[in-house]
Amino acid sequence: MHDINLEDGDILAKQKELASKNEDKLSLHGVRAINVMGAIGSGKTALIEAIHEKVKDKVKLGAVAGDVAGTDDYERFDQAGITAYNLNTHSDCHLDAHLVDHSLENMPLDELDLLFVENVGNLVCPADFPLGTDSEIVVISVTEGEDMVRKHPKIFSQSDIVVINKVDLSEAIGVDPEKPRADYEEINPNGRAIFTAAPKDKGIDELISALNITNN
Amino acid sequence: MHDINLEDGDILAKQKELASKNEDKLSLHGVRAINVMGAIGSGKTALIEAIHEKVKDKVKLGAVAGDVAGTDDYERFDQAGITAYNLNTHSDCHLDAHLVDHSLENMPLDELDLLFVENVGNLVCPADFPLGTDSEIVVISVTEGEDMVRKHPKIFSQSDIVVINKVDLSEAIGVDPEKPRADYEEINPNGRAIFTAAPKDKGIDELISALNITNN
Repeated sequence: MHDINLEDGDILAKQKELASKNEDKLSLHGVRAINVMGAIGSGKTALIEAIHEKVKDKVKLGAVAGDVAGTDDYERFDQAGITAYNLNTHSDCHLDAHLVDHSLENMPLDELDLLFVENVGNLVCPADFPLGTDSEIVVISVTEGEDMVRKHPKIFSQSDIVVINKVDLSEAIGVDPEKPRADYEEINPNGRAIFTAAPKDKGIDELISALNITNN
Repeated sequence: MHDINLEDGDILAKQKELASKNEDKLSLHGVRAINVMGAIGSGKTALIEAIHEKVKDKVKLGAVAGDVAGTDDYERFDQAGITAYNLNTHSDCHLDAHLVDHSLENMPLDELDLLFVENVGNLVCPADFPLGTDSEIVVISVTEGEDMVRKHPKIFSQSDIVVINKVDLSEAIGVDPEKPRADYEEINPNGRAIFTAAPKDKGIDELISALNITNN
């Protein structure tokens, strides 16, 4: 169940405390962490795979595969050679700091440089829960239409980078990626929008650079 | 905020009671209602528009546009000539029976035959909240990948019909729509999967027939 309205302040305070502990733990092991949010099918997993393929000789990547159910993304990470942990929420629509701590306890942090925490696929719930990561990005796909930023202002206003993915399909779909970019820049003037198409290797280098991945 | 674990049983009982009242109200006015769920960008709005275009001479359609924020879908319905009501949840990831009742209070029910209640775009939260509709459908798009059914078993197990949309893009995306169909039929052997592509008028007649729309 979701959205029971009580004591939001207390719950958020507790989540922030747990997130701060995760931050300390990651810092202690010298691991940077990025919270990767976005709707189902936006291409979060494929982008992490594409980044791994480019940086694996320099940077040791880990990934938490957050999903309501199943091991699909975990298996993809594992097959790509990324140190992965499968994290099912069962009915919850987001990860939280406690679940992420559980992942950290089960991963070889001393062997990692950078951890992607792939959140559950939607643009609503993940925005409310700090995880203790260093940065937050949102991945959207042109296949979701032109209006997804306007429909979910909160998650975009608080994210440093928005990846607008699958731009190679823009014409086939009839969606102009400049429109969500303009909406994002209006909501978050300090944010950065990056156009990508993972299978075409478009924008991956720019994303790696924006996330400062090879300069740890 | 979401997912506060307490007294789920009581909350669900209250939601069921409110849903039952909606059902009575709709029945009193002779309006059938369909809860349309699915991720953002799956094509819920376009499918409702396509159905309206085909049946408008026979069936008077209404639509509730459920979104976290904005009026994009409401405006689309309104421009298409569908009697529409805009329902923003602000931070919640789903509609609930109370919000739907609010819509019913503000719509000319006596003028309607059929009401589409377009839920907030994700495959997690809407599954937990009965609204008082006669049936529930889930719309997925091939652009979301092949694994969305496995990742969200609950919503698919309880839905009478799954619409697998944008099948005209299957080849361009490299996603075989038979895979989610097979997953759905395994989870829900009595359910029916329908392949559609709204802009190509593929599957719309089959969907209208499966929903029994013109035989009210």
